[in-house]
Amino acid sequence: MSILIKGGRVVTAESDYVADVYVEGEKIVAIGSNLPYTAERVIDASGKLVFPGGIDPHVHLDMPFMGTFSSDDYETGTRAAMHGGTTMVIDFILQTQGDTLRNALTTWQAKSRGKAIGDYSYHMAVTDFNDDVAKEVVEMITQEGITSFKTFMAYKGALMIDDGQMVQLMKVVKENGGLVTVHATNGDMIDSLIAKNQALGNRAPIYHYLSQPEVTEAEASGRFADMLHYTGCPGYIVHMTCEGALNAVRKATSRNQKVFVETCTQYLVLDASLYEQDFDGAKWVMSPPLREKKDQAALWSGINQGLVQVVGTDHCPFMWDQKKMGMDDFAKIPNGHPAIEHRMELLFSEGVNKGRITLNKFVEVSSTNAAKIFGMYPRKGVIAIGADADLVVFDPEKEHTISVDSHHMNVDYSAYEGWKLKGKTETVLLRGQVAIENEQCHLKAGSGQFIPRGKTSLTV
Amino acid sequence: MSILIKGGRVVTAESDYVADVYVEGEKIVAIGSNLPYTAERVIDASGKLVFPGGIDPHVHLDMPFMGTFSSDDYETGTRAAMHGGTTMVIDFILQTQGDTLRNALTTWQAKSRGKAIGDYSYHMAVTDFNDDVAKEVVEMITQEGITSFKTFMAYKGALMIDDGQMVQLMKVVKENGGLVTVHATNGDMIDSLIAKNQALGNRAPIYHYLSQPEVTEAEASGRFADMLHYTGCPGYIVHMTCEGALNAVRKATSRNQKVFVETCTQYLVLDASLYEQDFDGAKWVMSPPLREKKDQAALWSGINQGLVQVVGTDHCPFMWDQKKMGMDDFAKIPNGHPAIEHRMELLFSEGVNKGRITLNKFVEVSSTNAAKIFGMYPRKGVIAIGADADLVVFDPEKEHTISVDSHHMNVDYSAYEGWKLKGKTETVLLRGQVAIENEQCHLKAGSGQFIPRGKTSLTV
Amino acid sequence: MSILIKGGRVVTAESDYVADVYVEGEKIVAIGSNLPYTAERVIDASGKLVFPGGIDPHVHLDMPFMGTFSSDDYETGTRAAMHGGTTMVIDFILQTQGDTLRNALTTWQAKSRGKAIGDYSYHMAVTDFNDDVAKEVVEMITQEGITSFKTFMAYKGALMIDDGQMVQLMKVVKENGGLVTVHATNGDMIDSLIAKNQALGNRAPIYHYLSQPEVTEAEASGRFADMLHYTGCPGYIVHMTCEGALNAVRKATSRNQKVFVETCTQYLVLDASLYEQDFDGAKWVMSPPLREKKDQAALWSGINQGLVQVVGTDHCPFMWDQKKMGMDDFAKIPNGHPAIEHRMELLFSEGVNKGRITLNKFVEVSSTNAAKIFGMYPRKGVIAIGADADLVVFDPEKEHTISVDSHHMNVDYSAYEGWKLKGKTETVLLRGQVAIENEQCHLKAGSGQFIPRGKTSLTV
Amino acid sequence: MSILIKGGRVVTAESDYVADVYVEGEKIVAIGSNLPYTAERVIDASGKLVFPGGIDPHVHLDMPFMGTFSSDDYETGTRAAMHGGTTMVIDFILQTQGDTLRNALTTWQAKSRGKAIGDYSYHMAVTDFNDDVAKEVVEMITQEGITSFKTFMAYKGALMIDDGQMVQLMKVVKENGGLVTVHATNGDMIDSLIAKNQALGNRAPIYHYLSQPEVTEAEASGRFADMLHYTGCPGYIVHMTCEGALNAVRKATSRNQKVFVETCTQYLVLDASLYEQDFDGAKWVMSPPLREKKDQAALWSGINQGLVQVVGTDHCPFMWDQKKMGMDDFAKIPNGHPAIEHRMELLFSEGVNKGRITLNKFVEVSSTNAAKIFGMYPRKGVIAIGADADLVVFDPEKEHTISVDSHHMNVDYSAYEGWKLKGKTETVLLRGQVAIENEQCHLKAGSGQFIPRGKTSLTV
Repeated sequence: MSILIKGGRVVTAESDYVADVYVEGEKIVAIGSNLPYTAERVIDASGKLVFPGGIDPHVHLDMPFMGTFSSDDYETGTRAAMHGGTTMVIDFILQTQGDTLRNALTTWQAKSRGKAIGDYSYHMAVTDFNDDVAKEVVEMITQEGITSFKTFMAYKGALMIDDGQMVQLMKVVKENGGLVTVHATNGDMIDSLIAKNQALGNRAPIYHYLSQPEVTEAEASGRFADMLHYTGCPGYIVHMTCEGALNAVRKATSRNQKVFVETCTQYLVLDASLYEQDFDGAKWVMSPPLREKKDQAALWSGINQGLVQVVGTDHCPFMWDQKKMGMDDFAKIPNGHPAIEHRMELLFSEGVNKGRITLNKFVEVSSTNAAKIFGMYPRKGVIAIGADADLVVFDPEKEHTISVDSHHMNVDYSAYEGWKLKGKTETVLLRGQVAIENEQCHLKAGSGQFIPRGKTSLTV
Repeated sequence: MSILIKGGRVVTAESDYVADVYVEGEKIVAIGSNLPYTAERVIDASGKLVFPGGIDPHVHLDMPFMGTFSSDDYETGTRAAMHGGTTMVIDFILQTQGDTLRNALTTWQAKSRGKAIGDYSYHMAVTDFNDDVAKEVVEMITQEGITSFKTFMAYKGALMIDDGQMVQLMKVVKENGGLVTVHATNGDMIDSLIAKNQALGNRAPIYHYLSQPEVTEAEASGRFADMLHYTGCPGYIVHMTCEGALNAVRKATSRNQKVFVETCTQYLVLDASLYEQDFDGAKWVMSPPLREKKDQAALWSGINQGLVQVVGTDHCPFMWDQKKMGMDDFAKIPNGHPAIEHRMELLFSEGVNKGRITLNKFVEVSSTNAAKIFGMYPRKGVIAIGADADLVVFDPEKEHTISVDSHHMNVDYSAYEGWKLKGKTETVLLRGQVAIENEQCHLKAGSGQFIPRGKTSLTV
Repeated sequence: MSILIKGGRVVTAESDYVADVYVEGEKIVAIGSNLPYTAERVIDASGKLVFPGGIDPHVHLDMPFMGTFSSDDYETGTRAAMHGGTTMVIDFILQTQGDTLRNALTTWQAKSRGKAIGDYSYHMAVTDFNDDVAKEVVEMITQEGITSFKTFMAYKGALMIDDGQMVQLMKVVKENGGLVTVHATNGDMIDSLIAKNQALGNRAPIYHYLSQPEVTEAEASGRFADMLHYTGCPGYIVHMTCEGALNAVRKATSRNQKVFVETCTQYLVLDASLYEQDFDGAKWVMSPPLREKKDQAALWSGINQGLVQVVGTDHCPFMWDQKKMGMDDFAKIPNGHPAIEHRMELLFSEGVNKGRITLNKFVEVSSTNAAKIFGMYPRKGVIAIGADADLVVFDPEKEHTISVDSHHMNVDYSAYEGWKLKGKTETVLLRGQVAIENEQCHLKAGSGQFIPRGKTSLTV
Repeated sequence: MSILIKGGRVVTAESDYVADVYVEGEKIVAIGSNLPYTAERVIDASGKLVFPGGIDPHVHLDMPFMGTFSSDDYETGTRAAMHGGTTMVIDFILQTQGDTLRNALTTWQAKSRGKAIGDYSYHMAVTDFNDDVAKEVVEMITQEGITSFKTFMAYKGALMIDDGQMVQLMKVVKENGGLVTVHATNGDMIDSLIAKNQALGNRAPIYHYLSQPEVTEAEASGRFADMLHYTGCPGYIVHMTCEGALNAVRKATSRNQKVFVETCTQYLVLDASLYEQDFDGAKWVMSPPLREKKDQAALWSGINQGLVQVVGTDHCPFMWDQKKMGMDDFAKIPNGHPAIEHRMELLFSEGVNKGRITLNKFVEVSSTNAAKIFGMYPRKGVIAIGADADLVVFDPEKEHTISVDSHHMNVDYSAYEGWKLKGKTETVLLRGQVAIENEQCHLKAGSGQFIPRGKTSLTV
């Protein structure tokens, strides 16, 4: 199959020019002005943007959490992502404490195999570290193409490892060319604040927010950076929400250190005033919680300063009935919100259209940097000769409204209901196949492939 | 004229892949795998790197300084640059205090017209600011395509403006979409330290170094950032040399500010121990002077952290006889050293080969960022459809030795005599014309064009 | 003459206990419980505080400024100070640019001789530095007991020296055991902002404030600290007003540096909202101007953290008719406000009574530290055996209201009109003589002595 | 009993003058020049310093640790302290995890009752926090005069509480006017580094040092400061050793926070090069370990900047045979070293004599601040009317050599063997009784009293 995308405005992390893009099979073969190719399929992209398929490196599909499962599985989740221009996701495998990484991998392979519509990879969450696990870490990197290891500084007794395990894990990961990623919040503090609020009879969703103050994230982010510096391991902080945490990373730079940082769309465009409503605030109960306007400003600025490299979603949707598990206790509200579908469009509309970031930066943080940091470059994240033809044709002028009625995620509310955006995904290619066209998904479950990953290609 | 560069490893600020590059006239027309074009000229680039022509945004050609002139004029300077893969330079026009910007422009146009071999632009150095000059600033931006305004915080009585003039200039420049650049050292402190050393009979070149301690640069860099923050103007610090100054910029980021920073090759690879010899140290007498090993580390790290965007040269060569003007007084040694030719090769050999920066970063700091910051993007700095075909075919394996005997700059010593490098410019195209081939320059004086510039395309 | 102050609560920078204080001649001879002395005069201090006479190290008496003179001379000024419990002041001698320090000293000796009621010393403001002045600096320290040298980073053409002169002055002062003090604001920036506001027809007092934004003080404070660090000279920043400047000093501490800092009562208790009235705001036109609430918080905290050692006043009163010189141009309003009289009472009422500082800290910042920093310790600033019997008996419960109708300063408005304070000076002794009693001053003009000073006795 | 100390140079945290000090019963009654008292005992102090008895707020007497007990009990420990001019100590009660504070108090009362020669108090180490313990905390403050609560961020499973317990403890302590103190090192990291070194067969004492890198202390100090800031509780970091930890506290000051800091004599005068010997390095195995020269400089500077308020010892001696328990495993060397006796003399000789601190600062950090911070002021820590007559007559000229042969601590080696000091304790009074004279201790076991404590009297 060959496809010629004609006359679009090709936008990459670096460039921006009008050209044709010619695809053969799964790969991009040529880019040029009036390319002399005859293709089986021609897509007119004039007046449209053409950029690399988005990569969301932070999603939770079919994830067991708080006694239930996130409501999008690999099929519904990657399909919704595709609708929004995200052609690849990285999900999280959770090791069961006491069990092996291998068993966890097997479990997650079963969740994804034959189901994913978009491409995917896994981060391996190490929730229990010891000498045996250390050996498995090496195995994951060298044999399975899983090179990023997620850690939790929160959720003691379920997911958290302590700082001693952390530094030992970092040493192994460093020696083997991997990357340690982290949920950086002080779990002990949070647990104690939650318990106190519960004891006081504080039940509303806002207490979720009040139990995770900025300091819990700022502190843990600094601590993680300290441990990285001590071990020399490359690291990546997921879902950073606030100025305090960003300052912790900024401070680390003065010792010639670089820590990768991801924020998520919601932390850039929403704030904690949403918790001031009654139980409706449960829609945005996630960890860390939404923060303040000043934090949004710090994060946008951090993106332009190069301190924040990636914008993900931490997509982890729950049906409203699931959210209601916490009707009488904020601590029982399943954490997470639906976001996988509109990441690119929100970032475009709120970021590019409002002059906060350039078009190049938009591509960089929504796709290219994730590919580079997580070892999928030059296959993914770029419009380049030989790269996978994961391409988005995007209409920058098209206005639309987000709604539960029109979204494709398997969840019965929208976190952005009624938001009017300008700029919409029109056509999406996944490895040379038309995935989305006319708001329809043309790929079947199983079209998505597992993408083995290598070393990060950014210097720390 | 059409040229097909076949099978090279195309490297941009973002991408890295094997492809053909097809050029027609002055522009890049297509990039692809086995491109189906017949060209008048085919260049085999297999096993070679192909990257965008370098841009050196900090050179001084035919510059009047300290009673003499820098020894490279536009012809010899841009030719030498071309030999090293730098296809464009930005020189500095110096307003004479009391005179107009317009007159200064006319003077510099005369220096460059019909002489330049490579493309060029000018920064306008504002050395005397008042309401009339304010009007000329607007004129330069809107009519002449000169959008960057150089200021000096040193050289009182000749080039320096005071902080009051600075903030007023910033206001005008900001309103009109320009950029203020700065030589950020505390001139008053330096003048007083020089005078003191002269009074004490200290004559050797090392006193040049001792009269410009790190604090003089760190202080002024922080002050400049403060003034930028107050006025909201975008700014760019030229030739940053040290950790202290970098920390001043780093500190500014915590108020959500971004300041562009340039360092120069010499500050990354040379250090102040060179001044410990006798008068031979005069070869490296420049301002600011070379610093310490810890400063090199900070700068390399700053590049990877995104705090330093550009690597220039501050090329300002003087013949040995000119340097000897300061035989009896370090303060009379003309400031500057020859560097324009080997910037790219030094950065490749010391940076990429030693694992300090990636290949992408190499292109980014030697070409792309300068084009973007100084408003020449997307015409310059990229390998992209429609961009000027300024291209370098580079042999990453070729070993060579820097020497006055083989360099092309008009100066009778080398600052890097005997340095062995790996990686050499092989073929250079300037707007689709073969400029360098077989170590010969095929372009004549006058081939270079003045490139009018617009707004910076990076968000601050 | 002997005096026994019985049963007071003796408060020093360190201690707090009930005791008698016995004075013979000019000195404190004994402190104890029920001291067995018979004195010519017994003062019952039961229920009262007894603390060392206040020292205000920042006053301008009979000062030529902006074409007029501050309205308090040595007699009225030191008398008013005495009423408020301040027994000693340090005034500023201003060198005329181009003239000698010696001549300036002579001028100021004429102003004070035979007039002062309280003790006094001078800071020597060096407004023009060269090799001759360097010799006079040594002379002042070794022969005149004037060991602190004031510099101005503002008021170019009148008082300002440049950074080159500053570092040379610092070297001389350091070698001779003195101290450099500074008015740390960026004069060039301020002059340019004033000129711009004048050009725009902005006339109201608030433009005085808007022409001296926080950055002008933060920047200059950091620059001064940098120069101190470079030269190794001890230094003291007068009238610090804001968080930004305090942070500049805080940052300096991380290189193991200590810079002394003075704030003034007004910056602790007033804020810039006072400028929002019409011309009435002229009452508080001073340089630097009043700041924000967040700056007050930072300064109180700085006092408790040990970063701010001294609270002075910058007393520089002008009659309302003098202030009116600036009716049509904020820049012509004489800078300064009346404050010398109520410093101690304001600090007690707003600081101690409101729990912001301890009683010990109150004494430390209003008296003891000034004595130590400025080389008058152990003669001044303490209640200690052998020290000058400069003592205040203070009624902590007495409520009173500040008003132009009752104050003793020679100025026809009060900057704190109607403020209700709790805590009032009752009796004051100056070197063993009763100076204030029953709200009357019992000392005549000329009672005050010039106090020669030595080295600072605090380690930097 | 009355005592007249005649003609000494009385030195306090603030003052310095020649005077007599008259003592009646347990209290200081008068201070003055040629006091007219007849005393039962006259001590000639001419040429000598007279300062307040030292307070060492960090000692471990008869402490169970690592399967043994520190070798000084209350009798030998407080006697040795007295010989060195320290009249009071604060020891640590260790709650047994799972047991009550009350039981721990009872145990420690048994250790001290009838044995102490000097005065003493206890910090209560909370090693297990829950709602019941919360109630006991209130009881300790209100009924027992124990107002400081020690926490450990290290020694998991024995002494450590987690961050959640920490913030809850802070809330209770804050509400009740107490103070939380902390051993601030990252225990999890340290445990893991120890385990790794053990696994690698690294046995020598230097691995104790290498298992507690600076980052483990810097990180935990910052984390503790964060938790204090969040809760608003006053806090105190014990035995700070390094620049990194000091910087963490310095950073906290910029949010208007004050954290009290203690360092110990050894961290000011010894460094980690002592571990480079073979097992002899075990003499200085303590936690945290000795650090580098740059850390000494930072700590001395921190004292002068007011960031470090107290110099204690962490006295915790073990006999050489006890130390040998770790002959084959550095992790089994009992942690601690003998220091209680020479704290004042070392600080005087290394600090005052070498010009690093003033005499006033010497008194402030060795006595006064401890009294104020720990709520014993104005009874202790000062030479003031009504204060306990805990006084040291000190000969500043007397040279002596530290040796195990002459020291009074119950330990068979000296950590400072052969050190020559200038300045020696001559006579010591404890509450008006002669405790030390002619190098003999005149007090019997049981002379020391438990001193109930109140709130801190320094503003945070």
